Amino acid sequence: MQPEFDLIIAKGRIATAADSFSADIGIRNGRIVALGQLSGARETIDASGRLVLPGGIDAHVHLAQDGAPGIVMGDDFETGTRSAAFGGNTTVMPFCVQKRGQSLREALKDYHARAEGACYTDTSFHLIVTDPTEQVLGQDLPALVAEGYSSLKVFMTYADMVLSDYEILGVMKVARKTGALVMVHAEGFDAIRFNTEQLEAGGGFGPKFHAISRPEPVEREATHRAATLAELSDVPVMIVHVSGGEVIDEIARARGRGVKVLAETCPQYLVLEEGDLDREGMEGSKYVCSPPPRDRTAQEACWQGLIDGTFDVFSSDHCPYRFDETGKLTPDGKRSFRWIPNGIPGIETRLPILFSEGVKKGRIDINRFVALTATNPARIYGLRNKGTIAIGADADIAIWDPDKTVVIGQDKLHHGTDYTPYEGLEVTGWPETTILRGQVVVRDGELVGRPAGGHVLRPVSGMEQGVKAGR
Amino acid sequence: MQPEFDLIIAKGRIATAADSFSADIGIRNGRIVALGQLSGARETIDASGRLVLPGGIDAHVHLAQDGAPGIVMGDDFETGTRSAAFGGNTTVMPFCVQKRGQSLREALKDYHARAEGACYTDTSFHLIVTDPTEQVLGQDLPALVAEGYSSLKVFMTYADMVLSDYEILGVMKVARKTGALVMVHAEGFDAIRFNTEQLEAGGGFGPKFHAISRPEPVEREATHRAATLAELSDVPVMIVHVSGGEVIDEIARARGRGVKVLAETCPQYLVLEEGDLDREGMEGSKYVCSPPPRDRTAQEACWQGLIDGTFDVFSSDHCPYRFDETGKLTPDGKRSFRWIPNGIPGIETRLPILFSEGVKKGRIDINRFVALTATNPARIYGLRNKGTIAIGADADIAIWDPDKTVVIGQDKLHHGTDYTPYEGLEVTGWPETTILRGQVVVRDGELVGRPAGGHVLRPVSGMEQGVKAGR
Amino acid sequence: MQPEFDLIIAKGRIATAADSFSADIGIRNGRIVALGQLSGARETIDASGRLVLPGGIDAHVHLAQDGAPGIVMGDDFETGTRSAAFGGNTTVMPFCVQKRGQSLREALKDYHARAEGACYTDTSFHLIVTDPTEQVLGQDLPALVAEGYSSLKVFMTYADMVLSDYEILGVMKVARKTGALVMVHAEGFDAIRFNTEQLEAGGGFGPKFHAISRPEPVEREATHRAATLAELSDVPVMIVHVSGGEVIDEIARARGRGVKVLAETCPQYLVLEEGDLDREGMEGSKYVCSPPPRDRTAQEACWQGLIDGTFDVFSSDHCPYRFDETGKLTPDGKRSFRWIPNGIPGIETRLPILFSEGVKKGRIDINRFVALTATNPARIYGLRNKGTIAIGADADIAIWDPDKTVVIGQDKLHHGTDYTPYEGLEVTGWPETTILRGQVVVRDGELVGRPAGGHVLRPVSGMEQGVKAGR
Amino acid sequence: MQPEFDLIIAKGRIATAADSFSADIGIRNGRIVALGQLSGARETIDASGRLVLPGGIDAHVHLAQDGAPGIVMGDDFETGTRSAAFGGNTTVMPFCVQKRGQSLREALKDYHARAEGACYTDTSFHLIVTDPTEQVLGQDLPALVAEGYSSLKVFMTYADMVLSDYEILGVMKVARKTGALVMVHAEGFDAIRFNTEQLEAGGGFGPKFHAISRPEPVEREATHRAATLAELSDVPVMIVHVSGGEVIDEIARARGRGVKVLAETCPQYLVLEEGDLDREGMEGSKYVCSPPPRDRTAQEACWQGLIDGTFDVFSSDHCPYRFDETGKLTPDGKRSFRWIPNGIPGIETRLPILFSEGVKKGRIDINRFVALTATNPARIYGLRNKGTIAIGADADIAIWDPDKTVVIGQDKLHHGTDYTPYEGLEVTGWPETTILRGQVVVRDGELVGRPAGGHVLRPVSGMEQGVKAGR
Repeated sequence: MQPEFDLIIAKGRIATAADSFSADIGIRNGRIVALGQLSGARETIDASGRLVLPGGIDAHVHLAQDGAPGIVMGDDFETGTRSAAFGGNTTVMPFCVQKRGQSLREALKDYHARAEGACYTDTSFHLIVTDPTEQVLGQDLPALVAEGYSSLKVFMTYADMVLSDYEILGVMKVARKTGALVMVHAEGFDAIRFNTEQLEAGGGFGPKFHAISRPEPVEREATHRAATLAELSDVPVMIVHVSGGEVIDEIARARGRGVKVLAETCPQYLVLEEGDLDREGMEGSKYVCSPPPRDRTAQEACWQGLIDGTFDVFSSDHCPYRFDETGKLTPDGKRSFRWIPNGIPGIETRLPILFSEGVKKGRIDINRFVALTATNPARIYGLRNKGTIAIGADADIAIWDPDKTVVIGQDKLHHGTDYTPYEGLEVTGWPETTILRGQVVVRDGELVGRPAGGHVLRPVSGMEQGVKAGR
Repeated sequence: MQPEFDLIIAKGRIATAADSFSADIGIRNGRIVALGQLSGARETIDASGRLVLPGGIDAHVHLAQDGAPGIVMGDDFETGTRSAAFGGNTTVMPFCVQKRGQSLREALKDYHARAEGACYTDTSFHLIVTDPTEQVLGQDLPALVAEGYSSLKVFMTYADMVLSDYEILGVMKVARKTGALVMVHAEGFDAIRFNTEQLEAGGGFGPKFHAISRPEPVEREATHRAATLAELSDVPVMIVHVSGGEVIDEIARARGRGVKVLAETCPQYLVLEEGDLDREGMEGSKYVCSPPPRDRTAQEACWQGLIDGTFDVFSSDHCPYRFDETGKLTPDGKRSFRWIPNGIPGIETRLPILFSEGVKKGRIDINRFVALTATNPARIYGLRNKGTIAIGADADIAIWDPDKTVVIGQDKLHHGTDYTPYEGLEVTGWPETTILRGQVVVRDGELVGRPAGGHVLRPVSGMEQGVKAGR
Repeated sequence: MQPEFDLIIAKGRIATAADSFSADIGIRNGRIVALGQLSGARETIDASGRLVLPGGIDAHVHLAQDGAPGIVMGDDFETGTRSAAFGGNTTVMPFCVQKRGQSLREALKDYHARAEGACYTDTSFHLIVTDPTEQVLGQDLPALVAEGYSSLKVFMTYADMVLSDYEILGVMKVARKTGALVMVHAEGFDAIRFNTEQLEAGGGFGPKFHAISRPEPVEREATHRAATLAELSDVPVMIVHVSGGEVIDEIARARGRGVKVLAETCPQYLVLEEGDLDREGMEGSKYVCSPPPRDRTAQEACWQGLIDGTFDVFSSDHCPYRFDETGKLTPDGKRSFRWIPNGIPGIETRLPILFSEGVKKGRIDINRFVALTATNPARIYGLRNKGTIAIGADADIAIWDPDKTVVIGQDKLHHGTDYTPYEGLEVTGWPETTILRGQVVVRDGELVGRPAGGHVLRPVSGMEQGVKAGR
Repeated sequence: MQPEFDLIIAKGRIATAADSFSADIGIRNGRIVALGQLSGARETIDASGRLVLPGGIDAHVHLAQDGAPGIVMGDDFETGTRSAAFGGNTTVMPFCVQKRGQSLREALKDYHARAEGACYTDTSFHLIVTDPTEQVLGQDLPALVAEGYSSLKVFMTYADMVLSDYEILGVMKVARKTGALVMVHAEGFDAIRFNTEQLEAGGGFGPKFHAISRPEPVEREATHRAATLAELSDVPVMIVHVSGGEVIDEIARARGRGVKVLAETCPQYLVLEEGDLDREGMEGSKYVCSPPPRDRTAQEACWQGLIDGTFDVFSSDHCPYRFDETGKLTPDGKRSFRWIPNGIPGIETRLPILFSEGVKKGRIDINRFVALTATNPARIYGLRNKGTIAIGADADIAIWDPDKTVVIGQDKLHHGTDYTPYEGLEVTGWPETTILRGQVVVRDGELVGRPAGGHVLRPVSGMEQGVKAGR
C-alpha cells in the first residue's frame, strides 16, 4: 500500500499568524494536506522540541541587478536564494528593473532568464517602473498586471530611477484600474541632490555624509507626498523600508484620513545606527543604505510600529555589495559617499534578528512574527497558497531551534557578499531545516536542495490582490 | 472498529484569523484533532457551500445583572446564551458585578450560581470592581487573578459603579503585579451628572437628552484620562465600546506614546445614530445605551478603525432591557432619561451585522472578521484553546450560509427581550449551525443543545495573559 | 508763528496692533510727531466718532503683470493703487516677476518703470524668482537683498513659474545667507497638471473643474513640502493664501517641530466657496483663483486661524482680470478652465470684509485686525516706519466710519476690473479718508491725491528683516 | 505759568506690544497724555540710552496667603510689591483664597485688609474658589464678577483646594453667564496622591520625589480635562504655569477644535530643571514648586511656545517660602516632600530673565516681551488703561538699562524670602527706575515710593472682559 503522505513533519510546535498548536503536518504533492496526529509517510521529520513556521517570505530583495559600470551586485539568484533558504525563507521577491528606454517585457524576459533554474527558493518579481511611457502605462502594464505582475515599485529618488509626481500619478492610475499595488521608495530626490552637492562643496566625502545628506525629514516629506498621491488616486500604497518615527507619524495620519497606506520596515532600522556609517576609514561604507539607519529614538519608534500593527511587513531590503572594488570600495566610492552603492546584505539574517530581538525579548509574539514575515507578504502581494501552514497551502516550512544561540558572522552565512553588517550580533533562535513545496532544501544546516528547485511565481491577478491590499 | 472521529464537518470553506482554506474538520472528545480530507466519524455534517468559522466570542455582554428596584434585565444566562448560540457564538463573557460592600468572592459565588447549568454556550466572567477596599486590592484580587479571573473592569461613570482616578490607579497597580487586564468604561461621570441636571432644569427629559448629556468629548476626555492612568501604571488597558473618531484619535495618540491601549467597538456605533434616540414618544428609549450612538462621521471613523486595525475586538455590549415597565418604560424612565436603564440587546445580531456590513460590503475581509470576533477576544482575555480552528482547539464552530439574506426582526431572535434596535435591517450571511466543544447546539436554525451544555470557564492565569495583551 | 504741525487728525479713536485710545495725531513732514491733545496745525481733520487706523498694507497684490498673449491684467499701478487707497490702504506690495531667461535687474527695471510716478499709495516689490541660475543665486539675489529687495517668492506650480524642490533649496540657501524671506505659493504642479488632463479627457472643461483639479490635499502636500525644505534650509518661510484646515494643520505641525513658518490667508477663503465656480455659464470664471475657495468647514478653519494667531498676515491676493475677452472670457478660457487666468480682484474690499465679518461680528478685536492687515506685514517684510500709529512712523492713516453699511458692488469700486466677486455682500464699516505720509489721498470718499504721490519703497536690508521674521 | 506736564520721560527708546520708537512721554495726573517731542514739566527724567517699557504686570503671584500651621509665606503685600517694583513691575495680581466654609466676601474683605495701604505697586485680585456652594455660584460670584472680580481660579489638585470636575463645571457655568475668566491649575490630584503614597511606601521622601510624583503626563491629563470642561461649557479658560511640550500639545489641539484656551508659562520652566530638586540634602527643596520644572526638551518646548505665540502670558507664579523652619525646612517637610510647601520666589527676576534669555539672545523681540509681560495680562484680565504706553494709559513705566549685566543673587533682591532659585544666573538688561501712575517708586535702583502708593484695582466688569479673552 502506498503511504498516504510524501512527508510528515511530526511533533513540532506549529505557529501561524493566528495560532500556535502542536500537530503533525502531512504533505503530499508539495502541499499541506493534513494536520493532526498522522502516520504513513515516505519520510518523517521529527520536529519535537522544534518550532515549525511557515517559510519566510522576504518581500523586498535585490538580486543580480545591473549597476553602474564596474559595480557588481554581490548576489545572483543562486547565491541569494541559497542564503535566503539558510535563513528560513522559502520565497523571495526580487525586483525586475526596467531600464529607461527598455520595455517592461524585455526587462522581464531578462530577469526571468537570470532567475529560471537558478533558485533554491520560489521567487516572484516586483516590477520597477523607471520609464512610464504611454506604451508602458497604456498597454504593457495593464497586460502584465493581468498576467500576475501586480506590484509596481516607483522611486522618488536616484537619478536613474526617480519618477516625477506626474509620472507616479500615471502609474497609480494604472494601479487603480488594474488592482495593482504601488510600492514607493520614499525619499526626496531634489533634497538629497542638493544636500549632497552642499556637503561635497564643504569637504564632506566620507561614508557618514551619506546619512547626513538624507535625514529623516527628507524621508518624511516624500512619505507625505506619496500618501497624498495615493489619496488623490484612490489606491493603496506600500511605503517600503521605513526608518523612523516621523515617517511612521505621516503614515498614521494618512490612515486617519482614510488613505490605505501599507508599511514595511527592515532589520537595519532596528539594530543599526547612523553612527555605524562613521566607522573608521571606509568601514562605514558597509552600512551605507537608503534610507540610512537613524538613532535609538528611531529604532524605538520602529519597534513600536511592529508592536502596535503600524507595519504590515518586515523585509530585509537585501541589496548586497561586496566590500571590495566591485562594490563598496570603487575608486569613485572612496572619493565620495555619493558613489558608494546603496545597500546592505541581510536576506539570511532577517528572520533570526526579528525572532531574537522581537519574540525572544518579548516585544512581539510568535504569531505577529509569522504575520510580518510570511503571511502578510503573501496576502498583500497575492502569493496564493503561500505564507501559512494550512490545508491546501504549499508545504513551505521552516523548522527552527528556538533556543539555539548564534553569533552572527560572515563565516556562518551563505550569501555572495564578503561581509555582514550584523557581524558579532548574538541572536537566539535559528532556522535549521527549510522545506520548499515539500522538498527539503536545507536540512539541519546542510544544503540538500538544488538551484532548480525554486519556481518563479506569478501572483494572483492584480484585481484580486487589489482588494486584499486593503488593511 | 470504533470510528476515529466523533464528528466530521466536511467540505466547508474554513476561515481563521490568518487563513482561508477548504478542508474537513475532525473532532474527537470536543477538540479539533484533524484537518484534511477525513473519514470515519460517528457523525458527519456536510458543510459544502458553507463558511465554517470559529464560534464567535462575545467579549462584552451583560446577563442577569441586578438593577435598580423594579428593573429586570431582559436576559438571564439561559436566554442570553441561547440567543448567543443562535447568533453563531460559542463563548460569551458576561460580567460579575461586585456590589459596594460586597466581597468579590461573594459576588462570584452569586454569579456562578446564576450561570452554572444554565448556559448554551461557554461563558467566562469579567469582574467589575466597584469597591476596591484594601482587602479587595491586597488579598482578593491577586488571589482571583491567579485563579483565572484576569480581566477587571472599572467604570468612570454611573453613580453606583464609578471609581475615582485614585481607585483606578489602585486597581491598575494590582493589574501590574498580577498581569490582569483592566477594562475601562470611559465616560466622565461628573460631566454627565452636571449635564443631566442642566438638561432637566431646562425641561429636557425625553430619551434624546440621554445622548445630549454625554457627547463625544465626554468620552474622549475619559479615554485620555484612562490612557494616562495606564501610562502612569505601566499596564495595558482595554477601552471598551468606543463610539467615534475623537476617541479613536486619543487611542492612537496614546499608542504613539508607547502606551498599550486595546480597543473595542460594537454594532451600535456602526449602524445606529443619535437621531434614533429622538424617535417618537418613548420609542427612542430602545436606543438608550452608553456611550450613545453618534452620527455618520463617527460611524465612518469606527469603520476606519476596524479596517486599519485600531480596534482589537468587536463585541455586542449586549445589555438587554424589555420595552415595558420592567425596563425601558418604568414610571421613572418615562419621567426622565436619567432613569431609563442604559443598554440594548445585540448578542444574536452582532456577527451577522459585521459580516454583512463589513465582509459582504468589502470593508474588511473574512480573516479580520474572525480576528475581531473570535481570535482576538480569546487571546486578549486568555481563553485557552478558544477562538480559532486549529489542531487542539476546542471544537467551537459556527457554520454560516454566507449568502442567506435575513431582515432582522424581533420575531426571528431568541433573546429574552421584546425588541431589537436593529428591527428591519437587512443583512446577508447568517449562522445556521453552532457547535460547542463538538456538540451541536443549534442545527440548521433549530435549538438542539441544552442549557447545561456550556461550561463556565476560567481563563489562563493573569500572568500569562498579561504578556499576551501587548498589541 | 509757523504752526507746529502740518496736519492734525483730531478726536478720533485710534487703534494699533496693541492699543486702543483717543487722541489727536500731530503730523509734520509726513511723519507722526505727536500724540495727545494737540493744536496748531495748518490743517485739522475732525475724526470724532471715527476710527483712526494705520493705513492698510496689502502684502500680496499683482499689478500690471504680463500674461499670456491676449491676456491683460485688469489693473495697472495707477488703477490698482487708486483702488487700494479707496479701500483704506497706504502701501501695497506687488510682485516683480522675473521671466525665464531674464535677469532680475532687468525685471526690476521694468517693473519700477511701470510703478514710478503712477502710484496713489506707496509700493514695495516682492521678487518672483522663476529662473534661479547660478548668476541669479550667486550674484544678483545677494546684491538685491542687500539693496532691500528682501522677500523672494517661489512658485510650486504654474508651468511658466514653477521651481523644482532643488531650485527652491537654492533660493532658500540665498535666503539663509542674506536674511531674505522666502514666500511660497504652495500647490503641487504635477498633481494639478495630471488632474487637469484627466478632467479634460473626461469632458470636464467648465470653470468648476478648476477647483476640482486642485483639491485641498494638493495644497496640503505642497505646504508640507515647503515647510520641509525650510526645515532643511533653516530659514523662515511664508506660506501665502492658505485656503483651509488641512493646510493650517501642516503649518501648526511644522511650527511644533520648530520650523519658522509664517502664514497668510485672504478674503476669498472666508466668504467664497467652491460652489461659486459652478455658477451658470462662464459666471463661475469670476471666482477662478488659486488655490480655489473651498467649503464652509475650510472657511471656519481659516477664521479659527485668524482668531488663534495661526495667521500672521491677511492680504487680498488681488490678481485682477476683466470679465471679457482680455481676461476671463478668452476663447481658450471658454474652451477649458485650464486657460482661464487665475486670480480675482479684491484690493479695495479686503479691509472692509475683514472688518465687517471679523471685528463687527466679534470674531477678532480691532487690534488683531490692525496687526493682520498693517503692522505684521510691515514688520515681516521690513517696511520701516510703516504699519502703525506711533511717534516717528509715516503718517499713513485711514479714517473709518465703523458703522457705515455698504453693499459691495462694482459700481462703488475703483479698480480697473469690470466686476467684483463680492458683488452684493453687505458690510458694516468703511474707510472714508486715506492719508499717505501726511497727504490726503482720498477724502470722504473722494479722490484728492495724485498718482505721483506714492513712493516705491525698498524695505530695510534683508539681514535685519530676517531676524524679525521669526515669529 | 503752570507746566503742562507733571513729568516728562525724555529721549528714551519706547517699546509697546506693537511698536518701537523714540519719543518723550508727557504725564499729567498719573496718565500718559502726550507722546512726541515735549517740554514743560515739573520734572524730567532723562532716559536717553534707555529702554522705556510699560511697567510689568505679573499676573500670577501669591502674597500673604495663609498656610498650614507653622508655615508662613515669605512675602506680605509690602515686601512682595516692593520686590515687584524693583523688578520693573507696576501691577501684580495676587490671589484671594476662599477657605472652605468661608464666604467669598469674607475672604475678599480679609485680603483687601492685607493689601490696602501696603502696596508699592497696583494690585488686582484673582479669586480662588475652593468651596463652590449654591450660595457662591448662585449669588456671590455673579455679584463679585459684576463688581470687577472677574478672574476665577480653580485647582485640580491640592487637598484643601481641589474641585471636582462637577464643581469646576459649576464655576464655568457662572463664567459663561457673567463673562468671567476661569484660570486652572491643571495637575491631577488623584494621580499625585497615589504616586506620593507609593513613593513614600517605597522609601522616597526627599525633595526630588516631588517631581517624580507629578510627571508631565499628570499635567497633560489635567490640561486635556480642563480644556474639555471648557469646551462643554463654551467658555475661555486660562491654563496657568505650563511646564512642557506634552501640555502645549494638548493646548494646541484644543484650539484646533475651536476651544478658547489661553496659556501661561513662567521662568522656572525656562531655566530650572527637575535635576535641581535633587541637590544635596534639603537644598533641592528650594526648587519645589508645582508643576515642577522638567528637562531640556520641555524648556525648549516652552521657548517654542513663547516664540510662536502659543503662550499669551508670562508670569512668575511667585509663591515664596523661606529656607527655614517657617517654610522649606519644617520638621514635616524634612520628613517627606509631601509636606514641603510648594512654591518659589520670582517676582523680581521674572522680567530680567525673560529679557536676557529671550530678547537679548534673539529668541523673541522686544514687542513680544512687552506683550507677554504687560499688554496681554492687562487685556486678558481686564486691567483698563494698564499694560501699555499710549495716550490715556496709566503712566506705569519701567526704564531699563538694556545692557547692564547682573549676576542674580539673594543679596541684590528685595523680597521677603531668604533665597532665590536663580542664584548665580547672569542676565543682561535690568530695570532701573519704576514709575507707577506717574510717581517714581524706584529711582535708579533706590526705593523712593511708599507702600501706600499702590491702588487695589478692580478690573473692568466681567462681561467686557469675557469678550476680550477670546484669543
